[in-house]
Amino acid sequence: MTQPLRIAIAGLGTVGAGVIRLIETNGELIARRAGRPIEVVAVSARDRSRDRGVDLSRYQWVDDTAALVHAGDADVVVELIGGSDGPALTLARTSLSAGKSFVTANKAMIAHHGLELAEVAEAKGVALKFEAAVAGGVPVIKGLREGAAANEISQVFGILNGTCNFILSKMESEGRDFAEVLAEAQALGFAEADPSFDIDGVDAAHKLSILASIAFGTRPAFDAVAVTGIRHVLAADIAEAAALGYRIRLVGVGEAGPHGLFQRVHPHLVPLDHPLAHVTGSLNAVVAEGNFVGRLFFQGRGAGDGPTASAVVADLIDIARGEFGPPYAMPAASLTAAAPEQASERRGRAYVRLHVADKVGVLAEIAAAMRDAGVSIESLMQRGANADGSVLVAIVTHEGPERCIAQALEKLESSASVLGRPMWMHVLGG
Amino acid sequence: MTQPLRIAIAGLGTVGAGVIRLIETNGELIARRAGRPIEVVAVSARDRSRDRGVDLSRYQWVDDTAALVHAGDADVVVELIGGSDGPALTLARTSLSAGKSFVTANKAMIAHHGLELAEVAEAKGVALKFEAAVAGGVPVIKGLREGAAANEISQVFGILNGTCNFILSKMESEGRDFAEVLAEAQALGFAEADPSFDIDGVDAAHKLSILASIAFGTRPAFDAVAVTGIRHVLAADIAEAAALGYRIRLVGVGEAGPHGLFQRVHPHLVPLDHPLAHVTGSLNAVVAEGNFVGRLFFQGRGAGDGPTASAVVADLIDIARGEFGPPYAMPAASLTAAAPEQASERRGRAYVRLHVADKVGVLAEIAAAMRDAGVSIESLMQRGANADGSVLVAIVTHEGPERCIAQALEKLESSASVLGRPMWMHVLGG
Repeated sequence: MTQPLRIAIAGLGTVGAGVIRLIETNGELIARRAGRPIEVVAVSARDRSRDRGVDLSRYQWVDDTAALVHAGDADVVVELIGGSDGPALTLARTSLSAGKSFVTANKAMIAHHGLELAEVAEAKGVALKFEAAVAGGVPVIKGLREGAAANEISQVFGILNGTCNFILSKMESEGRDFAEVLAEAQALGFAEADPSFDIDGVDAAHKLSILASIAFGTRPAFDAVAVTGIRHVLAADIAEAAALGYRIRLVGVGEAGPHGLFQRVHPHLVPLDHPLAHVTGSLNAVVAEGNFVGRLFFQGRGAGDGPTASAVVADLIDIARGEFGPPYAMPAASLTAAAPEQASERRGRAYVRLHVADKVGVLAEIAAAMRDAGVSIESLMQRGANADGSVLVAIVTHEGPERCIAQALEKLESSASVLGRPMWMHVLGG
Repeated sequence: MTQPLRIAIAGLGTVGAGVIRLIETNGELIARRAGRPIEVVAVSARDRSRDRGVDLSRYQWVDDTAALVHAGDADVVVELIGGSDGPALTLARTSLSAGKSFVTANKAMIAHHGLELAEVAEAKGVALKFEAAVAGGVPVIKGLREGAAANEISQVFGILNGTCNFILSKMESEGRDFAEVLAEAQALGFAEADPSFDIDGVDAAHKLSILASIAFGTRPAFDAVAVTGIRHVLAADIAEAAALGYRIRLVGVGEAGPHGLFQRVHPHLVPLDHPLAHVTGSLNAVVAEGNFVGRLFFQGRGAGDGPTASAVVADLIDIARGEFGPPYAMPAASLTAAAPEQASERRGRAYVRLHVADKVGVLAEIAAAMRDAGVSIESLMQRGANADGSVLVAIVTHEGPERCIAQALEKLESSASVLGRPMWMHVLGG
């Protein structure tokens, strides 16, 4: 048997402990598949005394994470600390500069600094891999980088945040409102104490920007992702959508075309005959559209220690096999700087929900605002008065320019009859 | 730019022409992703004069396929002739023995001779790749071989034949019978003039045996696949299944466990909340269950020139990148020879449909046969008399040993009241 692949792990939270458990449980099988054993040589975390359910005594303990680079003569440093900057980024830079391969599950860091790190990795001829950063255990980066590599990919979109999908699925199946379900998800450990990265769509945007770069061969552009989360989705929206044959999902959409690179994370109405409509609970799913392969669909568990560890160790097996190349499927220097396409240039169908005062002429005002902005209405539903006397109006438009919707909503928002902010969701196309 | 990867293509049917069209269309992008261009240097097919919609004048034409190995100094021979033996196998053997990498879409050949060929490829240090042999454009071999490589995989199952799924979906949506829909599928080009490989499950069995070997690390064992096709599925079965909350799909199931290796292709009742129930038309889909990642689901187009060419060229890109290893994820010599598990040893729920004479005591006879064999009935439906005076009885059993069902059916088959052969389908578990 050839030399083992020696790894040092930074961060021993649930994922770090999961990686160790996986390597201990499946070690023999991994060695057969990888052609050599994968061996943990050193670990580092904040608290040495914490019980993590795994025996760490056989590994060198390193108090100072930054010193892990030189511990135990590791071939690969595995970073599971998290955070876009700070110790994780320092470790990435020093590891790659020292000529060590680097594996991470850190989507925030890769979204912000992936290009810089890829350049160092390529210059040093080592691996930078981050399968676990997107869709947990689902090999979607590999699917795009390698499986679909023969295709010009026009679209990549999907359900990239399990917490949001869990909440939306539960709101749907139980008819309950957002705040209540979020509180329950937090109690169950499906949502963080500070859930904003998840529910405001930032986490999904990190992942989308990574996928888009690999799918389209464009430079990562996290700042160009238009992001709206699920905070303002009501149980009533889900009910209206259901009545029309849709489910509501937080979908990250990336498209590359003649108008540039479009990236958006937003709640969408997904038709029931679309596979994303059947992605429930905390599952993740990604769709990619290639010019020869057509539509590919990947689904699985997007979070949790087992799935994330599975993706981390898959990266390690690739490295052990020597089967790795440029992190973004092509050399970082050759990624193109695509101009961002503005949402205002796009066309689509929209769902608009308004709370309005229950008085004469309100519907006429809404209809006029839509007409004046050039928005064509496909369906309109008005439900009886709420407890506060307001009335809910839900509209689905025909396909048209998004800027017309924006214009209509701007006008309506300033109307005395419209209470609060209108809700605007996109209808996912074919 | 480094040296191009030079390829020679044998077989210029729709897939062969598709590979050339893909390389011509996406050539520049492929070169960026692969690190070097992929260049067709020679082609061979039976009929030089046939119009294939691609310009072949720039490639060396080789009349004798066997001579392709030495044509144009190719690095890789791409075989798209088909057939488990004959010219395809000869070409595979001579190419690999000559130290050329070999890419094929030929599931029959890989199912029967993959192990032998892998041994030669490994001895020569060249690639043998066959992503296109299973599920067309869906990167499921890569998904198992690499994406799920960290996992002990207990199950792999899926919809592996697009023709059968097209027929079953159409029977379902239109309430029509098998023969009629088959004839239409043949007219549309979705089914071959001789459809038996597809509809009798042999094609799915080829693919299942390939997946099972990669998933479980076991020696390919095509002959151990128990195969039943969809010929005897009635529109009435689909209607009964629908009434019970199921759809009928031809599912290939592979399982590895303490009782050995189980491989079966059979029509199954798939619960509506299972993702395979939503795989319609000619799509393919594969589910794999890993001990850390949980359930992975892959779906896409399983046939056609575009998807198949996409998979063939993905293999070529891996080879151009130097990112390939043992074809079966581990050295062929280290694959284990698992004992086949017999269906009679298994437990499950069953759907049984009988045509019986419309006379007193028949139901009692059926119920007694089930009871005597130890089969517990969950539901039983009897529909009014058919035109021929027979009555259809559909039974779903509770979970129990399959051998008990077999025993009950054997008894009933010999009964004068039972007309024709009973239909037995399995209910797909969780």
